[in-house]
Amino acid sequence: MFVHRFLILTTIGLLFATVLNVQGKAIITVADSSSEHTDTDLENLPEIPVFGHTNPDTDAIGSAIAYTAYLREHKTNAKAYRLGTLNKETLYVLNYTGAEMPPLLPDNIANGSQVILVDHNESPQSMKNLKYMQVIRVVDHHKIGDLTTVFPVYLRFEPVGCAATVLAKTFFENNFKIKRTIAQLIISAIISDTLYFRTASTTADDHYVVEKLQGISEIKDLEAYSTEMFKAKSDLSGYTTRQILLLDYKSYVFNGQSWGIGVADTWYPDFLFNLKKLLAQSLAGLKM
Amino acid sequence: MFVHRFLILTTIGLLFATVLNVQGKAIITVADSSSEHTDTDLENLPEIPVFGHTNPDTDAIGSAIAYTAYLREHKTNAKAYRLGTLNKETLYVLNYTGAEMPPLLPDNIANGSQVILVDHNESPQSMKNLKYMQVIRVVDHHKIGDLTTVFPVYLRFEPVGCAATVLAKTFFENNFKIKRTIAQLIISAIISDTLYFRTASTTADDHYVVEKLQGISEIKDLEAYSTEMFKAKSDLSGYTTRQILLLDYKSYVFNGQSWGIGVADTWYPDFLFNLKKLLAQSLAGLKM
Repeated sequence: MFVHRFLILTTIGLLFATVLNVQGKAIITVADSSSEHTDTDLENLPEIPVFGHTNPDTDAIGSAIAYTAYLREHKTNAKAYRLGTLNKETLYVLNYTGAEMPPLLPDNIANGSQVILVDHNESPQSMKNLKYMQVIRVVDHHKIGDLTTVFPVYLRFEPVGCAATVLAKTFFENNFKIKRTIAQLIISAIISDTLYFRTASTTADDHYVVEKLQGISEIKDLEAYSTEMFKAKSDLSGYTTRQILLLDYKSYVFNGQSWGIGVADTWYPDFLFNLKKLLAQSLAGLKM
Repeated sequence: MFVHRFLILTTIGLLFATVLNVQGKAIITVADSSSEHTDTDLENLPEIPVFGHTNPDTDAIGSAIAYTAYLREHKTNAKAYRLGTLNKETLYVLNYTGAEMPPLLPDNIANGSQVILVDHNESPQSMKNLKYMQVIRVVDHHKIGDLTTVFPVYLRFEPVGCAATVLAKTFFENNFKIKRTIAQLIISAIISDTLYFRTASTTADDHYVVEKLQGISEIKDLEAYSTEMFKAKSDLSGYTTRQILLLDYKSYVFNGQSWGIGVADTWYPDFLFNLKKLLAQSLAGLKM
């Protein structure tokens, strides 16, 4: 049996009336079936950077490291990167877990390179030249912005509290063996993004993932651990007002206008209220 | 313990230097946890249309029906629709499976309504006014085009041969009990999109889903069934050349130019080759 497939193309500017016998086009994909391989095998494959948004938070960093670990088990030479300086909470988490700080993404990534995004998808929050890259995977929990691709793509977006929650669900589905460090990073990311299950964005899935991973993580007292994380983040001493504004700052385009949204979490609100005037002055300097 | 969260907003045109104490915003989502409920309970919820692309094929229709069945088990008043006339292959499949033909999507869907897309994501292939709707879920296997949302969204894109393959994977992950009709529709969609595993877009996942569902589907001879599907599709008699061009026709924007890509599958290539001149004339009439 043989089925003929015909492609008929039209365009506004130009008219093609050719009837073509098409062979089909290859799709670049990442194998989802795990198998035995060594790091040396992987190094022969092109490196694929994995990174979260600029002004990285604990989810952006933790998800990049966790997804990299998963992808390297699935025949992908993934490498975690960061797009900026880490805040004190994330530094505390890396120190606690013993995970290595991902290096800064170099600014000479060749056009057309494959890249993988976590915890963001909009170009104003990503690497420069994102539009010249081939985005092959995105795992996120935000609205979808200006992402487009030329090839079919792997996307996994869920409206949950944290990108690491979505990642953990895919790990469970694919029976990925989650190690202690990765479990700690996922739990830390969820605690950070949901302010330990306090935000309105918190879902049952965020609770479920933390409960399921707590044993592996060996974090006995989650409440105490989250307090240590927030204390680290609350230490805004040593930051300029401009640095405070940019701690967790994301850019968006709404109705053709560029907006920036910055968040500063602290246990010591008076510290920020006393800086109100200086913060306002620094804001003016952020206008692009 | 109480953590204060501060939001600092900037914009190009306008400068807000207000320091706000934010309560967080509600996220509209679809519950993913199944529980006992009746159709009467569902009817009290707003109806959410589920549909594939215009000029629907077997995947667009089968995935809309299958996803609707799943979502209705998960407290969502989903309803399957179609965006156009069915081709003869899809009519054959509906007749074989006994599934009801989804009605045409009405053209008076109120702006701001929630909608769910399968097997497409680009506005030129979707309902009119898609940009005024709230897209809450997309399950697809294509490149991502001009989709944007205001709220966090559920997206599941995988570079596999068929949207129904992605759906089936989510059904397996969530232990959804797949009935015979749904299994038949999923298998038919995969056979249709991959030309029974012949296209370059075919993946191991497409094979896996068909193997896993064949028992439930009670389709004993897949080869014979696919032959019947393709014979039905190959029957291009009774179509005008314009209808042939539009049988499986999708619109794209590449580099600011509008392109249309149409596919006609047939066992009888001479039938189409003999129509070459007439097809070319009809193509001219399709220029927008």
